[in-house]
Amino acid sequence: MNSNPGFFDRTLANLRSAWRSIARSDAKLELSADLPEGELEALRECIRACLAGKGGEVSARGRAAELGEAYLGLSDTGKLNFFNLLVDEFSIDQSALQAALTAHVECTTQAERLAGESRLRSLLTPAYLRLLTQFNALPQGVKFLVDLRADLLRLRGDDARLTALDEQLCQRLESWFDIGFLELRRITWEAPAALLERLIHYEAVHAVSSWDDLKNRLAADRRCFAFFHPNMPDEPLIFVWVALLPEMAGSVQALLERGESPAQEAQTATTAIFYSISNTQVGLQGVSLGNFLIKRVVNALRAELPQLKTFATLSPIPGFARWLQAALDEDDSLLDGDSRELLASDGWADDAERAAQLEKVLKPLCARYLVSEKRGQRARDPVAHFHLSNGALIERINWLGDRSAKGMANAHGLMVNYLYELDEIDRHHERYSESFTVGTSREVRALADKG
Amino acid sequence: MNSNPGFFDRTLANLRSAWRSIARSDAKLELSADLPEGELEALRECIRACLAGKGGEVSARGRAAELGEAYLGLSDTGKLNFFNLLVDEFSIDQSALQAALTAHVECTTQAERLAGESRLRSLLTPAYLRLLTQFNALPQGVKFLVDLRADLLRLRGDDARLTALDEQLCQRLESWFDIGFLELRRITWEAPAALLERLIHYEAVHAVSSWDDLKNRLAADRRCFAFFHPNMPDEPLIFVWVALLPEMAGSVQALLERGESPAQEAQTATTAIFYSISNTQVGLQGVSLGNFLIKRVVNALRAELPQLKTFATLSPIPGFARWLQAALDEDDSLLDGDSRELLASDGWADDAERAAQLEKVLKPLCARYLVSEKRGQRARDPVAHFHLSNGALIERINWLGDRSAKGMANAHGLMVNYLYELDEIDRHHERYSESFTVGTSREVRALADKG
Amino acid sequence: MNSNPGFFDRTLANLRSAWRSIARSDAKLELSADLPEGELEALRECIRACLAGKGGEVSARGRAAELGEAYLGLSDTGKLNFFNLLVDEFSIDQSALQAALTAHVECTTQAERLAGESRLRSLLTPAYLRLLTQFNALPQGVKFLVDLRADLLRLRGDDARLTALDEQLCQRLESWFDIGFLELRRITWEAPAALLERLIHYEAVHAVSSWDDLKNRLAADRRCFAFFHPNMPDEPLIFVWVALLPEMAGSVQALLERGESPAQEAQTATTAIFYSISNTQVGLQGVSLGNFLIKRVVNALRAELPQLKTFATLSPIPGFARWLQAALDEDDSLLDGDSRELLASDGWADDAERAAQLEKVLKPLCARYLVSEKRGQRARDPVAHFHLSNGALIERINWLGDRSAKGMANAHGLMVNYLYELDEIDRHHERYSESFTVGTSREVRALADKG
Amino acid sequence: MNSNPGFFDRTLANLRSAWRSIARSDAKLELSADLPEGELEALRECIRACLAGKGGEVSARGRAAELGEAYLGLSDTGKLNFFNLLVDEFSIDQSALQAALTAHVECTTQAERLAGESRLRSLLTPAYLRLLTQFNALPQGVKFLVDLRADLLRLRGDDARLTALDEQLCQRLESWFDIGFLELRRITWEAPAALLERLIHYEAVHAVSSWDDLKNRLAADRRCFAFFHPNMPDEPLIFVWVALLPEMAGSVQALLERGESPAQEAQTATTAIFYSISNTQVGLQGVSLGNFLIKRVVNALRAELPQLKTFATLSPIPGFARWLQAALDEDDSLLDGDSRELLASDGWADDAERAAQLEKVLKPLCARYLVSEKRGQRARDPVAHFHLSNGALIERINWLGDRSAKGMANAHGLMVNYLYELDEIDRHHERYSESFTVGTSREVRALADKG
Repeated sequence: MNSNPGFFDRTLANLRSAWRSIARSDAKLELSADLPEGELEALRECIRACLAGKGGEVSARGRAAELGEAYLGLSDTGKLNFFNLLVDEFSIDQSALQAALTAHVECTTQAERLAGESRLRSLLTPAYLRLLTQFNALPQGVKFLVDLRADLLRLRGDDARLTALDEQLCQRLESWFDIGFLELRRITWEAPAALLERLIHYEAVHAVSSWDDLKNRLAADRRCFAFFHPNMPDEPLIFVWVALLPEMAGSVQALLERGESPAQEAQTATTAIFYSISNTQVGLQGVSLGNFLIKRVVNALRAELPQLKTFATLSPIPGFARWLQAALDEDDSLLDGDSRELLASDGWADDAERAAQLEKVLKPLCARYLVSEKRGQRARDPVAHFHLSNGALIERINWLGDRSAKGMANAHGLMVNYLYELDEIDRHHERYSESFTVGTSREVRALADKG
Repeated sequence: MNSNPGFFDRTLANLRSAWRSIARSDAKLELSADLPEGELEALRECIRACLAGKGGEVSARGRAAELGEAYLGLSDTGKLNFFNLLVDEFSIDQSALQAALTAHVECTTQAERLAGESRLRSLLTPAYLRLLTQFNALPQGVKFLVDLRADLLRLRGDDARLTALDEQLCQRLESWFDIGFLELRRITWEAPAALLERLIHYEAVHAVSSWDDLKNRLAADRRCFAFFHPNMPDEPLIFVWVALLPEMAGSVQALLERGESPAQEAQTATTAIFYSISNTQVGLQGVSLGNFLIKRVVNALRAELPQLKTFATLSPIPGFARWLQAALDEDDSLLDGDSRELLASDGWADDAERAAQLEKVLKPLCARYLVSEKRGQRARDPVAHFHLSNGALIERINWLGDRSAKGMANAHGLMVNYLYELDEIDRHHERYSESFTVGTSREVRALADKG
Repeated sequence: MNSNPGFFDRTLANLRSAWRSIARSDAKLELSADLPEGELEALRECIRACLAGKGGEVSARGRAAELGEAYLGLSDTGKLNFFNLLVDEFSIDQSALQAALTAHVECTTQAERLAGESRLRSLLTPAYLRLLTQFNALPQGVKFLVDLRADLLRLRGDDARLTALDEQLCQRLESWFDIGFLELRRITWEAPAALLERLIHYEAVHAVSSWDDLKNRLAADRRCFAFFHPNMPDEPLIFVWVALLPEMAGSVQALLERGESPAQEAQTATTAIFYSISNTQVGLQGVSLGNFLIKRVVNALRAELPQLKTFATLSPIPGFARWLQAALDEDDSLLDGDSRELLASDGWADDAERAAQLEKVLKPLCARYLVSEKRGQRARDPVAHFHLSNGALIERINWLGDRSAKGMANAHGLMVNYLYELDEIDRHHERYSESFTVGTSREVRALADKG
Repeated sequence: MNSNPGFFDRTLANLRSAWRSIARSDAKLELSADLPEGELEALRECIRACLAGKGGEVSARGRAAELGEAYLGLSDTGKLNFFNLLVDEFSIDQSALQAALTAHVECTTQAERLAGESRLRSLLTPAYLRLLTQFNALPQGVKFLVDLRADLLRLRGDDARLTALDEQLCQRLESWFDIGFLELRRITWEAPAALLERLIHYEAVHAVSSWDDLKNRLAADRRCFAFFHPNMPDEPLIFVWVALLPEMAGSVQALLERGESPAQEAQTATTAIFYSISNTQVGLQGVSLGNFLIKRVVNALRAELPQLKTFATLSPIPGFARWLQAALDEDDSLLDGDSRELLASDGWADDAERAAQLEKVLKPLCARYLVSEKRGQRARDPVAHFHLSNGALIERINWLGDRSAKGMANAHGLMVNYLYELDEIDRHHERYSESFTVGTSREVRALADKG
């Protein structure tokens, strides 16, 4: 449920108008959406002025606002032209770099070496990075850069120059979004509606169907936590939903479809189930936030509710059905003919008999997929890889745990619990990091051996 | 007035105890204050483990806490040994760098070139920088790094390796303390006492003599503004005191020594006098904060009090007396014998006649010192350089503007007003940046010509 | 749209459980829902102990919690029994009062008279008032008393004793909800969802159909203000919706049914239309809040948006259709036969021709109803009386201003603008207060004369 | 240490100017400070207009502001004239009251009786009370009324009419300052300096000598709590200082004179010593706040520090020396001649031998004074009465517990611990309330028997 289609357009318009008012009154950078060749010279000039720092910091900020406002008006074509201009003309001074490299190879004293290294570092920093960093001083400038990187990821293709630009920008964002600068906040039904609306919009795993559904997910026996950055106080960067339960959960529908007055009290729960984690900022792709989130939330929950004993996820298995199909395409003996037929039949999930038959054959295959199938050395399933990297183990496979259309299509309804054993997280993490050894419960191990 | 000598010791003890509780329970890094040779191996091992990221992020954080807590217990000797270990053993992999340099010189395709640049950037980043950045994830970790840099500045001497370490750390801090991350706050008598106590402690220009004195500086016709960083919410990074007056101020004592119920109302003031700016964090030396501060404060004041017309400082001239002495040592004809005798006489400042005689000769010399004397190309006086860089001009020399012992010793009681003309700031800034042209009022220019 | 039917039940359960934990551990007041005769003695004893203040304040608070928790479990029958017990047994000591009256009539000195008055005041204060006031010390105790009064209003019928109880309680609430204790707050889309949900629930004039509808009513060119009491921080006591427009509004549907991205900017609006005011607390009936609200909101709007020139309502006319029917029952010549037939015909509002015909005859009658029809001396229409008392005048009658089912049923779709002329509010208020003179625009006056 | 003599004058000037701006532009009530006879008519007229509610609520508020602003400018003479005008001309309508009384005595039906009671209540409410209540709607109106009552208490003498006025005002303030409306807040060194300055100003028991002294009283093993009213958010109404200690404290100097870095940790303390309670608002005399404060603070401390076992005071004995002198004047055999001489000698407290001799005779007399001496039925010592009423018992007499000049003058240096035994507070309170039975420890009982 995206409750408000005009959401971002309106925000964008506000931002443009705010920046226009910061831009110098004699600002004259007016660009067409597609940024045709003929307008490049004006842009070049503006960028040069920004980089020269001419006119002091106030002017610099005004010029950045002028440039930023122009960028916000560009089409994808225009943005690509803008990026190309950056990498072609505002990157590294190659001749200076070559000279420095040659000089450095020949340096003899320590002092020369250190000075040379410093000079190389400076020369290897592209001018465009200094340019982009200047947007930071504008209101919502950090969010602008995150969104600019989202544009870049969408448009860069496999262009090596643009990939290098992306790498530089990503590193800068990593430095700014260092875990030490993030704030963990619990989100409740007392949170601003504007923030809750964003959760509805950003939820990536189990779509929120209505405000009542949302309220249910924020009930007394539920929790929601998110990371925030001080410069983007209204934007949850990543958030996780938790259900507090008397036992491990196997079905996400059972979790979400509750009556109106859930009687369950948080104080008696023994088990915290993380049933959905969503990243919100495309432009922060590759900036690791999720692993810290789970650990910080576990700590927050233990501080509030010391009686909690078990911390686990109820997770989708997004790649199972696709892998199974590919595996069957190669070798259809993986499943006997009857099972293949059943799986192709309509409505088997609603038919206890057919479902029971399929359970027998699919659970072992799913366990095998999660435990033994790899992409390179990593677990093939991306969600599995995420939790295994974080130090979880594969605890339980849940038959028909997600009967939504998406759950059926991606994983034939199967779900999995990843278990975070507090005292073992580091050990599991180390083993997976070093040798990609997948930790499992005995039950899952046995299933995988059958699969 | 440092109202609390135990101030920092107590904070330090709190921090050590907080970090000790984060360190892993089996932490065994115990270092003697002077960090003798025999203990280096244990330290090396801990640093290696930190850098290897062994044991997952939680372990990593625990290990950083362990290391940080050990650092806090070191003496200056120990700290120097620690820094030396970093630059000697956890810096750049020279052989890998040399190989990459050689390879890069020979690369032919664009893709090779870009990959090579990326590799060089990575190899040129010293391991110690990754190590230091990890402290960031600890509570008060940013403040820790700022203070560590203060240690480094105190201890590095002119050692090129330590200077390189400092340069790297400074750049990282610059990225974190980018103006876009700072928050300007007005400080009033309603602020927490713990914060006001820090203002008393940190005031660097005109010492605060008591809480009553402080309250007076926060009266209805006074303002105080400071920059804060989200990760150091209790620490003003830099702060400025402003007096709102009906006219330009010439004497700082007149400004500070007021009766009990200052009748002056902010609403009728036409002139804002910035009479003191103090940096608080030695470890942020070289990270530019001051120029933004003045501009942002001018904007905040204009928004609150649109009737303000004049924005100027009442500034000390810290280097005048020293320069004058040096100049006289070279050529004593600068001052006639009578004047030299008067200047050496006791209590001349309290004697209207002697003072008037000296005024005639010292004011021109002071104007000449400010306008024409240089260190390299910059204005010789550091405060003059700061304000000229920011786009101010030298407006007026004030005779006996600061009769405190410090004011008499440093500048024979002279003070100066730097004027910030709103429409001219950028122009002045540009001219001074480009050609070190010093802007002055006609009056000061005329004085300087006589000096 | 009542988004959450279990809303109050859940709150009630929470309150009972909170109070149970405050009640003394040996609390033994257990009452059946209908409070049968046989349980009255236990209740009596508990009330007596409360009033005696036995056992100190902590005990007193525990006993009040015990009593309050028992009350919350009562059915309407039980509550009525409880109220009857209060007025029959915990009211005024009649014999003491009679004695004091007799004594007072005979007092001779001023001191005797003053002492007698004091004694009379004390004796005239019923014991039950002291009892009820004690609930105040409990968490949410003020809200409890407000809700208890709502029970009383519902159950008292025309019983003189219960009416006296209500009068006393009302006066006490009036003292607590004095305007000086209320806080005006603007409510935006940034407000807590839990608060916005209450607006949806409490909206009494134009029902909120969805969260998107609500968001629309909180857009950039809309305002919502509410009064809060410090002891009921989550409960808006009364709230008003305002639309900022370029001109006077005539149709509430046009106001509410807007496209997705309303372009209108608050900064260019000249007219503030108050289109809905809702009281939320039945138990505060008779405690005047509305008149202050409008005036305070007008002040807040003028401070924010000085360009606003016109402040008016777009108001329903809840009694028009009923009055018209009654008037026609008495004298059907008020409307010619054709018009009566048209009015009874289906769908006339959608038929331009029939609607136009009816407009000619109904608008004058409506103006006459508003201007000339009285209940006692007051304007017969309650909304008219409210705004006229506040100093507004009747500015314009709007044909088909509210085409909702409710609007058609109550007022044949007619709406009215009451105008608040800032400089004339006091004069209009005085004239209406003193002589019930109804202020109107010329246009409405002319219409009324025809009606 | 009153750190700021101009404190209240400045606040008063601000208030007057704020109210002047609310008063109607045509306000013409200008009164001389002493409010001479000739100006009474203008005042009368203004009061009448206020009471008539002429011109609507906005006018009413403006008129109250006009009247209030005039009041603030009056001298004591003027204020007394103002109060006299109120009680003489704006009190109760005696003829209406007499008529109602006569009618009421003769009423026969229940409905008549109830109506009569209501009418009597209304007639017994003096007009001046309605007038004073109107100030409530002004900014800082509640504080104004509290201060007006302080004026009244100071000026009323034993005038019965003014005492009646005071009684009415006190009851109204009691209703507003009901415990349910007060908020308990902990005050730390992070509190606004403006608030801490008030603590320094208001501290009534052990004067605060400096900001360092204050900071010491807010150290990690100290606590300060205060009650606040929502309409006076900057004014602590009553506050208490607590020391967290390993054992019962006997000397207030030992408590206050600590080194710079108190090592004591709150977490290891077993004993909370309440060593000073100060009321701040003279105008709230008779409105009980203190008993609730201690109980709420005990609860807050137990919630934070569950290991606390003992809650006691270290209290002054303000009336001991005066009582002893009076008792000796009547019967000098209470003390033998030697002791009387010693007590009169200079510096005995610094001479161990003399002090030891006096301890033997004074401690029993002090115990006797506290336990057995009465004023009416109450304990003679006011502090003893306060704590005994609250449910404390007399635990221990401390020799030379307060060696300040005040402590020596009032109680020959003796202090006392009142003990709050959590499970016994209610029982002790009841016994003292009912029969003025004084609870003591065995030790104190034995001493008292000797005294």
